[in-house]
Amino acid sequence: KELMGKVNLGDMGFLNLMGRLPTPQESNVFNALTVTLVEHGITPSAIAARQTFLGAPEALQAAVAAGLLGLGTVFVGSMDAVARMLDGALRKGGGGAVPTRGAVVDYAALAADIAADFNARGAIIPGLGHPIHKPVDPRVAVLFRIAAENGFSGHYVALIQAVHAAAQARTTKVLPMNATAAIGAIACELGIDPRVVRGLGVMARAVGLVGHLLEELQNPMSAEVWHRVEEESTAHMRPNA
Amino acid sequence: KELMGKVNLGDMGFLNLMGRLPTPQESNVFNALTVTLVEHGITPSAIAARQTFLGAPEALQAAVAAGLLGLGTVFVGSMDAVARMLDGALRKGGGGAVPTRGAVVDYAALAADIAADFNARGAIIPGLGHPIHKPVDPRVAVLFRIAAENGFSGHYVALIQAVHAAAQARTTKVLPMNATAAIGAIACELGIDPRVVRGLGVMARAVGLVGHLLEELQNPMSAEVWHRVEEESTAHMRPNA
Amino acid sequence: KELMGKVNLGDMGFLNLMGRLPTPQESNVFNALTVTLVEHGITPSAIAARQTFLGAPEALQAAVAAGLLGLGTVFVGSMDAVARMLDGALRKGGGGAVPTRGAVVDYAALAADIAADFNARGAIIPGLGHPIHKPVDPRVAVLFRIAAENGFSGHYVALIQAVHAAAQARTTKVLPMNATAAIGAIACELGIDPRVVRGLGVMARAVGLVGHLLEELQNPMSAEVWHRVEEESTAHMRPNA
Amino acid sequence: KELMGKVNLGDMGFLNLMGRLPTPQESNVFNALTVTLVEHGITPSAIAARQTFLGAPEALQAAVAAGLLGLGTVFVGSMDAVARMLDGALRKGGGGAVPTRGAVVDYAALAADIAADFNARGAIIPGLGHPIHKPVDPRVAVLFRIAAENGFSGHYVALIQAVHAAAQARTTKVLPMNATAAIGAIACELGIDPRVVRGLGVMARAVGLVGHLLEELQNPMSAEVWHRVEEESTAHMRPNA
Repeated sequence: KELMGKVNLGDMGFLNLMGRLPTPQESNVFNALTVTLVEHGITPSAIAARQTFLGAPEALQAAVAAGLLGLGTVFVGSMDAVARMLDGALRKGGGGAVPTRGAVVDYAALAADIAADFNARGAIIPGLGHPIHKPVDPRVAVLFRIAAENGFSGHYVALIQAVHAAAQARTTKVLPMNATAAIGAIACELGIDPRVVRGLGVMARAVGLVGHLLEELQNPMSAEVWHRVEEESTAHMRPNA
Repeated sequence: KELMGKVNLGDMGFLNLMGRLPTPQESNVFNALTVTLVEHGITPSAIAARQTFLGAPEALQAAVAAGLLGLGTVFVGSMDAVARMLDGALRKGGGGAVPTRGAVVDYAALAADIAADFNARGAIIPGLGHPIHKPVDPRVAVLFRIAAENGFSGHYVALIQAVHAAAQARTTKVLPMNATAAIGAIACELGIDPRVVRGLGVMARAVGLVGHLLEELQNPMSAEVWHRVEEESTAHMRPNA
Repeated sequence: KELMGKVNLGDMGFLNLMGRLPTPQESNVFNALTVTLVEHGITPSAIAARQTFLGAPEALQAAVAAGLLGLGTVFVGSMDAVARMLDGALRKGGGGAVPTRGAVVDYAALAADIAADFNARGAIIPGLGHPIHKPVDPRVAVLFRIAAENGFSGHYVALIQAVHAAAQARTTKVLPMNATAAIGAIACELGIDPRVVRGLGVMARAVGLVGHLLEELQNPMSAEVWHRVEEESTAHMRPNA
Repeated sequence: KELMGKVNLGDMGFLNLMGRLPTPQESNVFNALTVTLVEHGITPSAIAARQTFLGAPEALQAAVAAGLLGLGTVFVGSMDAVARMLDGALRKGGGGAVPTRGAVVDYAALAADIAADFNARGAIIPGLGHPIHKPVDPRVAVLFRIAAENGFSGHYVALIQAVHAAAQARTTKVLPMNATAAIGAIACELGIDPRVVRGLGVMARAVGLVGHLLEELQNPMSAEVWHRVEEESTAHMRPNA
């Protein structure tokens, strides 16, 4: 009750994850991360939510939930893979604890180990490379600037940049860093538990999906999407088609 | 344990809803209802499940759940609206209890009351009329035949047919009966509680959606659906578009 | 991109629903509504999310989604029943349009009509009366104060208060107003479409549920809840029990 | 349409996964697997579904979906971990293809490799060991008997039994085989793609959860569960507590 009218929804999210209200700097950074994750465009999430709304318009909460269910390893969940990768490497380098702020860390060495490890396993480093259907993400630079301006550009940010450099050095293809990599690193700077970093995307997408459903009410597109997908998927089964 | 190897999945569904195993006739009818509801084509449910799978392929259960979430008032949920409408009318006509099997019931009078009531409220009778995007449903006649052959063509089936006739008499448009109307009526014949009649569709669609996800693995279509919806929905926002 | 670092998550929610950024006053009110709806206590939502996490800890998004699915007519969804009730009455009184700000409206007359209408239908007025398991809600007064201080105490707030008075006059029981009634009214003051008012609760609970799941990781309680519920529910089936 | 009245729901599930109707033997086995997975007791799934129903009784599909969302790596999802483990080992042993029926396979050698591999990684072999809160599972022997009687006790069944023996030999603790291990193996015998083996559990639990929700309507327990969990979880925060 004492928070009502004094804090914003993003700060409330921070409080829920950290057990205390944010400083103004933390508030800037946390809100920037979640605002970045509110997606306006047509994503698989948005399509799932809108198709669900078509059949159950009385249950807006279910349509939002349907949209959240795809935030798994391929899309938003890559954020916590990044967070775990960075956190694990820094703890290993620091003998179990993350090095203190300002401590000297050989980011290039840690990054080389990470790149070699993923390479040996034939695995793809999370947060790097062209995500499906997206060009280079201009939000990465903005996120790093906001983190730095507010005093949250520490070991995690330095390490993800070193990992990016190490991975880029291993290939001739252009290997951009995705926003999820920057967000995963900066969330760790704020002290958020890597196990719930994905939760920032879940919060943000819930906000965005309600907007999508309003737009579907005002400007419906889902019935047409359905009919066209159906028509095309069955076209080859019809005579003379 | 004692059921393993002796009953089929449909009979298990019947047991769960009725507290006992079905007779062979009940098994025929219950399995026919659920088999009818397993959908092979591209429905909004299937699209939602497949889009969800794209982002979270590690969580098949979540993709199925996303597909179930749209089984609300517009699509499968109309079955329990039918069941409640019929059950309410028969109980009202029967002084609170459903008339016994073989009792004389004036279906035409009950149906006229129902049609007048919906008309007065400007409401649409559930289960009648062209459902979105579907032609006349040939499954209706098959369902009524199966019900009759197994001894489950009683008051509910007679009343939905009378309701259909009464509603058709009020309009010059062709007003077909949908499969959901037949299923809602026949489920009541089996004694299934109208409050969970929708559950038959939920069971059946869960079965069908697992099949859809396997097909998506074998023959992916969801990334292309996404990209095309995205492209078209943003086309008008681009310069020179 | 241009919003990153400049707006908070609540303002982003407003932007999504209203198509523009909020004024400072709108931001205050919108954030207060959503912050109020972030639930810290143990709700059915929180239990569902935590039980889900127990079986699928790799899918945090699915546990949050499970928690959102219960935000239906009984709990959070009553907000949009309130919003629709008030909006419908004001439009009817205003000949289809909501009366302009400052116009004279006979709230008591509209409220008497509402109370009489619900009474005639044997229906319960949404947002009034002891919600399940909750004492009088001290947040109601705070919400109305915040709305007034920011210039959003207009027709909707006046009408819900008149409805409360009219309903209270019809009974000798104490009939408190719930927070959902205040939030439904104030959301309408902000101009939010009644059809998505429930969405404020969905956004807020998504934020809160991520916190619940972190707490479950740090301080697990769900396995014990499960075992105790299971034990008690089967106790009567055991010999000598 | 031509299937209505002729096949049962389990056969329909088989058709969806295999592209053809089952033989009588396949039908016996497939139905036995799914019937085994219909859970009657109080599971985390059932609790999640019932808590969801409390808040959204108008959306039965959402309550079932909430119950399905926990079928992840810890509970039902272990089935596909078993299926992948066995399928991978047999293909590796067979040079990429699963050995033909009747081919001589050194199960003990493959099993020793599996056990050594899991041991080296500090990982737990899926499907073995006491599952949370469950005693030895009598259904395992029944499942293997049904598989054998119908001609589906081949390489996968032999290998899971060899894995069990190898793992048991490495410890002095009693290490029972869970039903999920038997089901994962037998599903592979039927030729079901390991990537959707979890889907058998999803189908079956959907059937079971509808039953749980009917029981909740007839014999409500969820409000009390909620209130007690809430009371106990907040007891330590009250004065004099």
